Amino acid sequence: MTDRSIHPRHLRWQAAAWMTLALAALPAAAKPPILNNTVQEQEVLAAQQAWGEALVAISKTYETQGREAAKTLAGKVIDGAYGYQMGPVLFKPTLTTAPQTFRTTREGALAYFVGGDKAYPNDTGFALKGWQKVEVTNVGMVIAANTATTMGNVTFTDREGKRTTVDKTWQFLKDDSGKLRIVVHHSSLPYAAP
Amino acid sequence: MTDRSIHPRHLRWQAAAWMTLALAALPAAAKPPILNNTVQEQEVLAAQQAWGEALVAISKTYETQGREAAKTLAGKVIDGAYGYQMGPVLFKPTLTTAPQTFRTTREGALAYFVGGDKAYPNDTGFALKGWQKVEVTNVGMVIAANTATTMGNVTFTDREGKRTTVDKTWQFLKDDSGKLRIVVHHSSLPYAAP
Amino acid sequence: MTDRSIHPRHLRWQAAAWMTLALAALPAAAKPPILNNTVQEQEVLAAQQAWGEALVAISKTYETQGREAAKTLAGKVIDGAYGYQMGPVLFKPTLTTAPQTFRTTREGALAYFVGGDKAYPNDTGFALKGWQKVEVTNVGMVIAANTATTMGNVTFTDREGKRTTVDKTWQFLKDDSGKLRIVVHHSSLPYAAP
Amino acid sequence: MTDRSIHPRHLRWQAAAWMTLALAALPAAAKPPILNNTVQEQEVLAAQQAWGEALVAISKTYETQGREAAKTLAGKVIDGAYGYQMGPVLFKPTLTTAPQTFRTTREGALAYFVGGDKAYPNDTGFALKGWQKVEVTNVGMVIAANTATTMGNVTFTDREGKRTTVDKTWQFLKDDSGKLRIVVHHSSLPYAAP
Repeated sequence: MTDRSIHPRHLRWQAAAWMTLALAALPAAAKPPILNNTVQEQEVLAAQQAWGEALVAISKTYETQGREAAKTLAGKVIDGAYGYQMGPVLFKPTLTTAPQTFRTTREGALAYFVGGDKAYPNDTGFALKGWQKVEVTNVGMVIAANTATTMGNVTFTDREGKRTTVDKTWQFLKDDSGKLRIVVHHSSLPYAAP
Repeated sequence: MTDRSIHPRHLRWQAAAWMTLALAALPAAAKPPILNNTVQEQEVLAAQQAWGEALVAISKTYETQGREAAKTLAGKVIDGAYGYQMGPVLFKPTLTTAPQTFRTTREGALAYFVGGDKAYPNDTGFALKGWQKVEVTNVGMVIAANTATTMGNVTFTDREGKRTTVDKTWQFLKDDSGKLRIVVHHSSLPYAAP
Repeated sequence: MTDRSIHPRHLRWQAAAWMTLALAALPAAAKPPILNNTVQEQEVLAAQQAWGEALVAISKTYETQGREAAKTLAGKVIDGAYGYQMGPVLFKPTLTTAPQTFRTTREGALAYFVGGDKAYPNDTGFALKGWQKVEVTNVGMVIAANTATTMGNVTFTDREGKRTTVDKTWQFLKDDSGKLRIVVHHSSLPYAAP
Repeated sequence: MTDRSIHPRHLRWQAAAWMTLALAALPAAAKPPILNNTVQEQEVLAAQQAWGEALVAISKTYETQGREAAKTLAGKVIDGAYGYQMGPVLFKPTLTTAPQTFRTTREGALAYFVGGDKAYPNDTGFALKGWQKVEVTNVGMVIAANTATTMGNVTFTDREGKRTTVDKTWQFLKDDSGKLRIVVHHSSLPYAAP
């Protein structure tokens, strides 16, 4: 495959090839090229971490450069991490209420993260709340086909060191470029017994 | 394929074949057998309805035959509708609290539905609350490979006609027999603004 | 979803929605948007027919406009119908021989279809042989996830009306745009008993 | 998950967990259970090797115990390695001819491997030809969801040391128990230029 070095995707297999090579202990000569659109656990863990880092980055951008800069970054984060360009995203944010509980469009997601959208009057901008740290703890994972779903807790720490923990489910779908995109995101505050 | 009539799976393709036949307008003679493990929307809607009917059935069984009968039925429902035999199920019920929020095992699911399990002291039996009706409203669906995920509202009506609405995400995985099994279930009460 | 009309993908779901609507007989109001990356049988049949029509088109272009025009068209057909941009394509053409039997790169596929590539001295250009008609007969289909595999006979008719039948296996993978791309193609002449 | 030790599937994740653990370098405490129905390259390589060993075993059984014992073993091999119980298998053996080229049923596959079936008069029993060794060389692999397809050469060595090489495509589908089953098998002799 003399062209393997000229396509990014080929480099990606190459990397995958060497990892599995270590496990399969095959002679390099016997190593065939692989087209693999399945999801690996490590990709999921990396996508979760990237989501948390992006949220912190939006908070810091808001503090240092203001709402417009934060909104611009939030738009880039949504376009890079979610799958709105692939179809509807099943997004139930932590703090939304009926009749705007579900945000299946990019506009609804952007309004939730940075607020300031007259169409979503109750959104105050979740990503603007001074988040300093995001920690993800998974209780399990379901990997099926080119998709993976995680469930667990996500804990957000703000400037005062106050920690907020939510119950969160994410489903990621791998796109043609090999990138995982969030297509389902259900977040909720823990149930408080009366 | 003289054996097509003797295997249930073959009958299933046959049915699917005729449905698509209507769309594709192919001569019946050109109809090849199909092995299809992907999920169809109608199967998902049917599985959601079956879940609701099963919950109502457990409530009625509890009223008419008591807890043991209800527990026996709940066990059958879990074994038939969830995927615990396939692996961990990512189940976050509506009313659970830390450190027992997530119920990734069959035991944890059964305790939530019918209570009475010392290992889960806070479980009072969600399925025993006299549910008369369950309504599902989807805001969207993601079908990927042999799995489908839905998000939306589910409204439960009790004996007094009191309606409780939750935000719910379900992911179904199709097993070898063609049955959809719940592998992810995240349910939460609507966020109440302070 | 006020933006449903502005994205092609949304139109595609819309279409899919109406088809399934006819089957599920749901009220239109209950129709949620769907992201579906699974393959439907009709898409496979259409992709097979398109492959045959493209082969005939290359033959006719060669007759009327010469090799360069045929080569340009063949390149477009390969880029449109195969998945070389997604990774290696497992392509075993009918008439290739060792050590160049398998054509896992775009260059190898183009050489097979139009010849004239010094790197593939035995290729005479399969698509240039005056094909007038291509008929596909499937003996079965396997649809799994975002991929479908077919097996059967393909019969090519040339200018003199001579018919050549091969045994052929195709695997199609659906890309992000919803297009089926050939990722596996094994073609062979029928076995001739000694 | 105190029940992880009592279900075979759990042990399977455990193993998978430790492998990925080595790659992801996660603390064992953070290791969530995983339900994963995707295919790994090593599973495919193992399934190919098992197919070759089974063919040799049938040949040796025929030599030492006769046709009936070989037929019994061949039936077990087909039931264990192919997916006929899941639906039609797209099987085009090396030496079959029209109108019995394709063997989409178990009966047709068994007849090909051991012959002696009046319904398939041209079958002489491919697995009875004294095979001593089977070598598989892949030119590439496509892994999509719970399925994987390979293409390459398979070389069979008989008692006299005569080697026969065929061009072969296999598609494997993972069943609920985690076992890979052949659902597509296209084998052909190399093209011989006139």
